[in-house]
Amino acid sequence: MPSKRTLDTFLDDLASSSPAPGGGSVAALSGALGAALISMVCNLTIGKKKYADVDGDMKKIIGQSEDLRRQFTTLVDKDTLAFSKVMEAYSLPKDTEPQKALRGAAVREATKEATLVPLEVMKHCIDALALAQEVASRGNVNSISDAGVSALMLHTACEGAALNVRINLNSLDDPEFVGWKTDEVASLLSTSRMMLDEIQAIVEEKMKND
Amino acid sequence: MPSKRTLDTFLDDLASSSPAPGGGSVAALSGALGAALISMVCNLTIGKKKYADVDGDMKKIIGQSEDLRRQFTTLVDKDTLAFSKVMEAYSLPKDTEPQKALRGAAVREATKEATLVPLEVMKHCIDALALAQEVASRGNVNSISDAGVSALMLHTACEGAALNVRINLNSLDDPEFVGWKTDEVASLLSTSRMMLDEIQAIVEEKMKND
Repeated sequence: MPSKRTLDTFLDDLASSSPAPGGGSVAALSGALGAALISMVCNLTIGKKKYADVDGDMKKIIGQSEDLRRQFTTLVDKDTLAFSKVMEAYSLPKDTEPQKALRGAAVREATKEATLVPLEVMKHCIDALALAQEVASRGNVNSISDAGVSALMLHTACEGAALNVRINLNSLDDPEFVGWKTDEVASLLSTSRMMLDEIQAIVEEKMKND
Repeated sequence: MPSKRTLDTFLDDLASSSPAPGGGSVAALSGALGAALISMVCNLTIGKKKYADVDGDMKKIIGQSEDLRRQFTTLVDKDTLAFSKVMEAYSLPKDTEPQKALRGAAVREATKEATLVPLEVMKHCIDALALAQEVASRGNVNSISDAGVSALMLHTACEGAALNVRINLNSLDDPEFVGWKTDEVASLLSTSRMMLDEIQAIVEEKMKND
């Protein structure tokens, strides 16, 4: 479980010659960091007299952001595992025709699974960006830069996960699955980009008035 | 030292009602993750027959990326500390005129220091993006998505750090310092954006040919 390791150990494992954890796990971690920053802004808003009117909303948001944080953290590990399974499938014997067929099917299945993990990261990013927009709009203005960094981390998580979906799709010989997932990635990415732009406009406005 | 904590503990501290660590530390961590991914691509390139002609270059790059990773990791902690010092200065007594003057000077000094930490993060991002461009261009093509995620994390680190410089500058009453640093932030940000665009073009090209 990378999430139980120290930051230094995780960074060491990342930098090492082992291909997992890699960019996919980093994308999920970027999502977890973005979600944690949403919770932080909620925590710095809840109980403040000046923000009494949004107290209930912030309590609701923090329930959702903490749930998303847990899911992103789980996906850090799931991505590493999914990648290891692809590697395992590639290392199966391919000396005979039946072995080749078995190996081909195992690689295909593992690769499909490896596209689904970053796709899940992308979907969670959209949910989390909606919460980041709420806390940027109505959370404690003293934490506006934290809301801004949250949105940046979530959009980067989405873009990074998209690269990981696409590199896995590249090696799949299943046009229907590939076509469907390619469209899904494009749609999620453009939603994420639009949401980041909206949040950045809010952040800019609040930074000016600070 | 946050870097000695587990990922979960760091995320818990981040999500908590304590204002530090916050977005500034996350920006520095994003830089460390980007630098670690550069090292990973180098490690997956060094010693490979197909990449024998870039072996020496990759060994040189990994020396620099590991050095940058260490600096980013140190900056995670430095940002938390700098922010705590600003909070400390604000909590100084302000009952008498001499106390007010003392407190004002302490706040000013701590705030200036708190702008310099994310500015350092931004400068390191530019250096790291230059390395990310090298590994995207000439590193192991199987790791092209990792090079892409690296560039995303580094640019987001730069943008996140910029928000933290700017929010600190907002509260400073020193037009010369503010003007100078505002220009520096704008220039670093546009360089970072340009470098990300260039790297993303390389990544797209390589993903197509994969």
